[in-house]
Amino acid sequence: MKNKKFVVGLVQMSMGKNPNDNLKKAVSWIDKASKKRADVICLPELFRSQYFCQVEDIKNFELAETIPGETTEVIGKTAKKNGVVVIVPLFEKRAAGVYHNSSVIIDDKGKITGLYRKMHIPDDPAYYEKFYFTPGDLGFKSFKTRFGNIGTLICWDQWYPEGARITALQGAEVLFYPTAIGWHPHEKKEHGKAQFESWMTVQRGHAIANGVYVAAVNRVGTEKQIKDSAGIQFWGSSFIADPQGVILAQASVDKEEILLAEINSSRVEYIRQNWPFLRDRRVDAYSGIEERFLDGK
Amino acid sequence: MKNKKFVVGLVQMSMGKNPNDNLKKAVSWIDKASKKRADVICLPELFRSQYFCQVEDIKNFELAETIPGETTEVIGKTAKKNGVVVIVPLFEKRAAGVYHNSSVIIDDKGKITGLYRKMHIPDDPAYYEKFYFTPGDLGFKSFKTRFGNIGTLICWDQWYPEGARITALQGAEVLFYPTAIGWHPHEKKEHGKAQFESWMTVQRGHAIANGVYVAAVNRVGTEKQIKDSAGIQFWGSSFIADPQGVILAQASVDKEEILLAEINSSRVEYIRQNWPFLRDRRVDAYSGIEERFLDGK
Repeated sequence: MKNKKFVVGLVQMSMGKNPNDNLKKAVSWIDKASKKRADVICLPELFRSQYFCQVEDIKNFELAETIPGETTEVIGKTAKKNGVVVIVPLFEKRAAGVYHNSSVIIDDKGKITGLYRKMHIPDDPAYYEKFYFTPGDLGFKSFKTRFGNIGTLICWDQWYPEGARITALQGAEVLFYPTAIGWHPHEKKEHGKAQFESWMTVQRGHAIANGVYVAAVNRVGTEKQIKDSAGIQFWGSSFIADPQGVILAQASVDKEEILLAEINSSRVEYIRQNWPFLRDRRVDAYSGIEERFLDGK
Repeated sequence: MKNKKFVVGLVQMSMGKNPNDNLKKAVSWIDKASKKRADVICLPELFRSQYFCQVEDIKNFELAETIPGETTEVIGKTAKKNGVVVIVPLFEKRAAGVYHNSSVIIDDKGKITGLYRKMHIPDDPAYYEKFYFTPGDLGFKSFKTRFGNIGTLICWDQWYPEGARITALQGAEVLFYPTAIGWHPHEKKEHGKAQFESWMTVQRGHAIANGVYVAAVNRVGTEKQIKDSAGIQFWGSSFIADPQGVILAQASVDKEEILLAEINSSRVEYIRQNWPFLRDRRVDAYSGIEERFLDGK
């Protein structure tokens, strides 16, 4: 097999109140990542704004935009200029009343070549996503790019082995998880460590079970959507795990930075030959997965 | 909800060449675990013998036994005497030419109340299980016991999120993985750490994704089935993870011992309410799981 390699660049950034400033900042980080030889660059979930889902407010629908739209146009130019693929997470306005939490794939010619709409939508205190986002209707997706096959999932998807599996079965060698996750400051002391470790562990588990790289891209900074609230302290810590779950690179908890790692098709194949999990799957016996709960079985 | 609790006891032991000695030793450990207030006790995979799958030799089929049979009779008496449930992993002789790697559930009255046949069968150098074991045909299983709902899987199953998910969806609060896993001494230095950590991580991932306890029960000792071979160094390290993936207890790498931990239904419910992954599953979009590979999708 050809020893195909490419470099992923994860942009860990903080978001200000002005969406245009966030877009400019993202472009600047894409340029920097390109100079550091990244081929496929991924931005954090909903990178154009602060994490507005801390509240339910219809004014926030003004943040949604069409695809194609301003963001894909601006990022497209940068992608073309640098000859890189960019994964661009957006608040997608599909139609009046139909909005998605999406990721657009923009290729190295600046063209839109793929769209993923977040399949699993959370709803927790200060993560009121069910108010804003219609669950995705495009299924789980792997995309062929000039550099390699990439799978795109988003944040809450990272807790679901099914999404990782179906994306890997389509040929993805790396699963990207643009993310916005953090601590509620009031519970960080008691629960923060276990929450953070669960987040790392379950994603490393996807890497291991599927023999794929996993790249999680989080934001940093504390954001308050309600005055005098504690807000959310986004925990950064973006990381790239190899197909055995080994952490290749991990970012800080609180700084903007680019995280780089090499994706190697030969490594995927080597690990899958040594740990041949895909060979032995009992596809005849998995139908229960499609049930909500197997009551009384 | 009633705050239902019970104690699991994992018997980490080494196996000698004489199956009768191994049975006696297991009975002795069950007695000890019962005295320490274990309610549900689990033995390691194929506990009656050394790990014969290091070689392909039809003489080893002599180790197989019927269910019910000698082992279930002997363990049944111990279970009844102590009032405990025991998970008994066996080399099952089902018919001439049909053998399984199985686990029998024996209840606190000493009766056989459940049977699981290993679904995923490995075949790696020195783990030639496909030669001996017909893949299970009973599907994934959760069992109601006097103490609580328990799921039984076996070793290689631990790498498959599908098995963990389907077992948890049937109501299991704890997934038991009787195991026989170790290092090839010649590759331990280079790969041992990553292999061991992958094993821990993927199982902790099942605990997190499903909000269940996970109990892995391994053997210890170095066993050589071929004279002058290096054999396998079984890595012990049996452990119990809570529904958030936190390690509650872990055994040594090389000693026989009992590992105890409390299973608490309220903890399962609390974690699932705080991390409501089961609520948001996209059961409409998981059909790809039942395919071997999604070529060209």
